[in-house]
Amino acid sequence: MNYGIIRNVLGKIMIMMACIMSVSLIFCVAYQESFKCYLAFLVPVGILLVLGWLLNIKKAKSKKMLAREGFVIVGLTWILMAAFGGIPFLIDGCMDNFFDAFFEMSSGFTTSGGSIFKGTEMEEITHSLKFWRSFTHWIGGMGILVFVLAFIPESDDGSAMHILRAESPGPQVGKLVSKMKATSRILYLIYFVLTIICILFLWIGPDKRMNFFNSLVYSLGTAGTGGFSIHSIGVAYFNAYSQYVIAIFMLIFAVNFSIYYLLLIKNVKEVWQNGELKWYICIVTIAVTIIAINIFHMVSEITTVEEAFRHSLFQVASIISTTGYSTMNFDLWPNLAKFTLLIVMAIGGCAGSTAGGLKVCRVQILFKSSIKKVKNMVNPRKVEALYIDGKPMNDATLEGVHSYFAVYAIVFVLATLLISVDNFDLVTNISASLTCISNVGPGLGAVGPYGTFYYYSDFSKFVLSIEMIAGRLEFFPLLVLFTPSTWKRKI
Amino acid sequence: MNYGIIRNVLGKIMIMMACIMSVSLIFCVAYQESFKCYLAFLVPVGILLVLGWLLNIKKAKSKKMLAREGFVIVGLTWILMAAFGGIPFLIDGCMDNFFDAFFEMSSGFTTSGGSIFKGTEMEEITHSLKFWRSFTHWIGGMGILVFVLAFIPESDDGSAMHILRAESPGPQVGKLVSKMKATSRILYLIYFVLTIICILFLWIGPDKRMNFFNSLVYSLGTAGTGGFSIHSIGVAYFNAYSQYVIAIFMLIFAVNFSIYYLLLIKNVKEVWQNGELKWYICIVTIAVTIIAINIFHMVSEITTVEEAFRHSLFQVASIISTTGYSTMNFDLWPNLAKFTLLIVMAIGGCAGSTAGGLKVCRVQILFKSSIKKVKNMVNPRKVEALYIDGKPMNDATLEGVHSYFAVYAIVFVLATLLISVDNFDLVTNISASLTCISNVGPGLGAVGPYGTFYYYSDFSKFVLSIEMIAGRLEFFPLLVLFTPSTWKRKI
Repeated sequence: MNYGIIRNVLGKIMIMMACIMSVSLIFCVAYQESFKCYLAFLVPVGILLVLGWLLNIKKAKSKKMLAREGFVIVGLTWILMAAFGGIPFLIDGCMDNFFDAFFEMSSGFTTSGGSIFKGTEMEEITHSLKFWRSFTHWIGGMGILVFVLAFIPESDDGSAMHILRAESPGPQVGKLVSKMKATSRILYLIYFVLTIICILFLWIGPDKRMNFFNSLVYSLGTAGTGGFSIHSIGVAYFNAYSQYVIAIFMLIFAVNFSIYYLLLIKNVKEVWQNGELKWYICIVTIAVTIIAINIFHMVSEITTVEEAFRHSLFQVASIISTTGYSTMNFDLWPNLAKFTLLIVMAIGGCAGSTAGGLKVCRVQILFKSSIKKVKNMVNPRKVEALYIDGKPMNDATLEGVHSYFAVYAIVFVLATLLISVDNFDLVTNISASLTCISNVGPGLGAVGPYGTFYYYSDFSKFVLSIEMIAGRLEFFPLLVLFTPSTWKRKI
Repeated sequence: MNYGIIRNVLGKIMIMMACIMSVSLIFCVAYQESFKCYLAFLVPVGILLVLGWLLNIKKAKSKKMLAREGFVIVGLTWILMAAFGGIPFLIDGCMDNFFDAFFEMSSGFTTSGGSIFKGTEMEEITHSLKFWRSFTHWIGGMGILVFVLAFIPESDDGSAMHILRAESPGPQVGKLVSKMKATSRILYLIYFVLTIICILFLWIGPDKRMNFFNSLVYSLGTAGTGGFSIHSIGVAYFNAYSQYVIAIFMLIFAVNFSIYYLLLIKNVKEVWQNGELKWYICIVTIAVTIIAINIFHMVSEITTVEEAFRHSLFQVASIISTTGYSTMNFDLWPNLAKFTLLIVMAIGGCAGSTAGGLKVCRVQILFKSSIKKVKNMVNPRKVEALYIDGKPMNDATLEGVHSYFAVYAIVFVLATLLISVDNFDLVTNISASLTCISNVGPGLGAVGPYGTFYYYSDFSKFVLSIEMIAGRLEFFPLLVLFTPSTWKRKI
C-alpha cells in the first residue's frame, strides 16, 4: 500500500471539496442571509483547506498507484465527504444530530434523495442550504473523483484510470477517447450542457411556480438522478408541463453517457446496436403500461387517461433512474403497481449514467446467461458464446456480474437484518434497505414518498448511510477498506 | 429427443404411482369409510394403470437417454403427479376446483405444505385423505423418480444417473456407492429407518394426543420436510415433548443424507470436515439465539426462557428445513424475528436432504467466492483457488451456483409480479412467492401460519403451484420443458 500517494490525493480532494462547498456562498449573498448562514459554510471550508494543506506538505516518495490504492481513495473520499458535507446543517441548527447530517449527505452525494426532514421542514431551511443539498446530487451523480481528476492538472493517466474504475458504475468502464482525463472532461461537458438545457426548459416553460431557483434546484436533482425536493409535496407542486419535462430528463440522465458522445460524433450505427439501450426502453415501456392500466382502474383520484399515463411515466422514470421524485403518493397505489416499482427500483438505470441500482446491462447479462445455461442443458455438446451488443462476452465479465449480484444480495440482506432491530414493519424495512442500496430515495410504508427516515435509530441511520455509499460505489471500494490485507505495506 | 424412452418411462412411473396411491386404501378399510372414499382412490388408480399400460405397449427402438430426456421425464412426471394426486379430493367433494386440488398436491409432493384448506376444514376430511396428503410429502421428499428407479428392476444405470441428477437438489450429485441404483436404495433405507424412529419417539412419548395415526401423519410431514398439518392450530395442539421431538427431527431431515451414510460406515473424519454441516449448525444457532432473545422481550404470551427457546428452536427448525409446521402464529412476532425467518426461508436446508430453498452449500459458496473476489481486487496478481470442504472448487460448479442464483431471482420476481394482479398486500405476495419457491409452506400476512392460499385467484394458484414444482426441481427441468429446441427429434 502506497500511503504517501493516498495522503496526497486525499489532500487535493479536500481542497477541491472546499471550492465546491464555497459555491453555496453565492446564495448566502444573493438572498442576503444571516451571518450564521455564512459561517455554516465558511467553517467546513476552512477545516478542509487546512487539512488539505497539511496532507500535501509531505510528498509521496513514489507516484505508483494500483487498483488497491484506487479503491481505498474512493472509499475514504465518499465517507469523508458525507461527514464534512453535513457540517453546515449542524451549524445552521436545522439538524442537531451528527447521524442525521451524515445520512442526509450520504443520501445527497450518492444521489439517493431519501431525507431526514419530515413534513414541511425542508421548505423552511435557508436558500443556501437548499442549494447545497441539491448541488451534492449534481456532484455525486457523475462522481466526486471524476470531477477532481478532470480538473486537477498534474494527475497522471494511469492513476486516473484506477480511480475512475473504482468510482464509476457498471460492469465495464470504457474510455471514450484514448486519454482518461480527456474522457472525464467530455463526460462532464455533456453532463453540464444537458443540465443547462433542463434548467432552461423548466424556467422558460409555462409554469409560474418554476422560478429560476426552483428550476436550478430541481434540475440539479434531475441531472444527478438524486431526488431531494424542496417542497413537502414534491413535484406535485408543479403543473403537468414541468412534470413531463422532469420525467423526460430523468429518463435521459439514466442513459449511458457514451451514447450522447456517440451521437455527438455522429456514430448512429453504434447507438442503434446498443443492447442495453433497447432493454432500457423496453423495460420502461412495459412498466409504464402495466402501471398506467393498473392505476387508471384502481386509483379513484385518477380520472383521465392522460393523468394515468403522466403519473405512471413520471413514477417509472423517477424510480428506474433512481431519482425518487414523486407526483403522487405511490405508497397508496395498488400492489401490482407497487411491486412493479420495486422491480424497476432493483434494476436501476444504464451503466455509465448517473443512475443507481443493479444496472440494465447486468440484468440483461443475467437473463441472457440464464437462457444460455438452459440451452446448454438441452444440448451439452454445443457450446455457444454469449453475445452482448453483437460482441462475444468474456468469462471475466460474466463472473464479475455474477459476483456483483451475489454481493448485492448479501449486503442487502445483512443491512435489512441490522435495521430490523428498530421494529418498523417489514415493508418499511425491506423497501428502506432496497431504496438505499439502489440509491433511489423514497421507499414504501413509513419511508414512502411523503415519509421520512427521521424515526430510525442512529444505528440504523448509520447502516443505511453506509449502504447508500456501498451501493453507489458498487460495494468493492468499501469492502476493500474493511479487508485487513489492504493495509499491509508490501504485497 | 428419444420420444420412445420418455413414453416407456412415464408409463412405468404411472403404474408405480398407482401402487403408491393404493396404500391409502388401507386407511379406508381401517376406518371403515364410505364407498365414496374407496372410489376417490380407485378411480385415479384405474386411470393410471390403463394409461401406464397404454404407454408401455410400444417399446422404444433405442434405450439411449441423455440429460435432455432426463429433464423432460422429471418435469412431466411432477406436473402429472400433482394433477392425478388431486383427483381424490375432487371425487370426495372436499374440493370443487381443479386448481385447488392441483395446488394442494403440488404443495404436497414438493413438500411445501401450504394449504388451500381454511380454518378447521382440514380436521374434517376423511382419514384416508389425511394420510394421502401427508404421504405425498414423504414420497416427494426423497423424490418420486428416485423411488421409482430404486425399485424398478430393468432400468439401467446411465439413465438412472441422468434422472437422479435432474431430480435431486444441490449443486453436485455424488454417488455414495459405484452404482446409482444402489445409492438410491441406501438413501431410501436411511430415510425409511429415520422415519420409523421419529414415529416411535412421538407415539411412545408422554403426549396423550399423539395416537398412532397422528404420530404417523406428523412423522411423514417431518421426514419429507413437508408441513401439512391435520389440526387447525398445527403443532401447538401437542405438548412440549412432541414439539421438541418434531423440531429435532426436522433439523435431522434437513442434513445431507450422505452424512448419515458416512456415519453408518463409521467415516467420522469426513463428517467432521463437512463445511456445509458446520455452516448449517452455525446458521441455526445464530437464528435461534436472535429470535429467542427478540421474542422473549417483545411477545407478551411468552413468559419463560424455556418457552422462548422452544418456540424459537421449533420455528427456525421448521423454516430452515422448509417444513412449515408452527407452534405459534409467528406472523405476530416482532419484525427482527420475522425477517430472520425470511432469511432462513431463503437459505433452506443442506443439499442432498429433503429440504428446499437455495441450500446452505450454495450460500456458503456465494459467501466464500465474494470474499475471494474482494481479496482478488486488493491483490490482483495473487490467484487463489476457492476451497470447499478442503477441496479446490472447479469453475463449472461456481458458475452453476451463480446461474442457479440468477434463475432463482428471476423466477421469484416474475412469479411475484404475476400474483400481484390479485392485489393482496405486498408482504402477503412476496412471502407467498418466497415460501412457494423455497417449498416452505406458510408465509406472512394472509398466507401466514394460520392463513390459507384459498383466496388467491385460480391463475395465481396455478402460478404458485408451478413455482413450487420449479423450486423443488431447481428450475432447469421445467425450463427445459419450455425450451423449443428440446422438442427437436435430432440435435
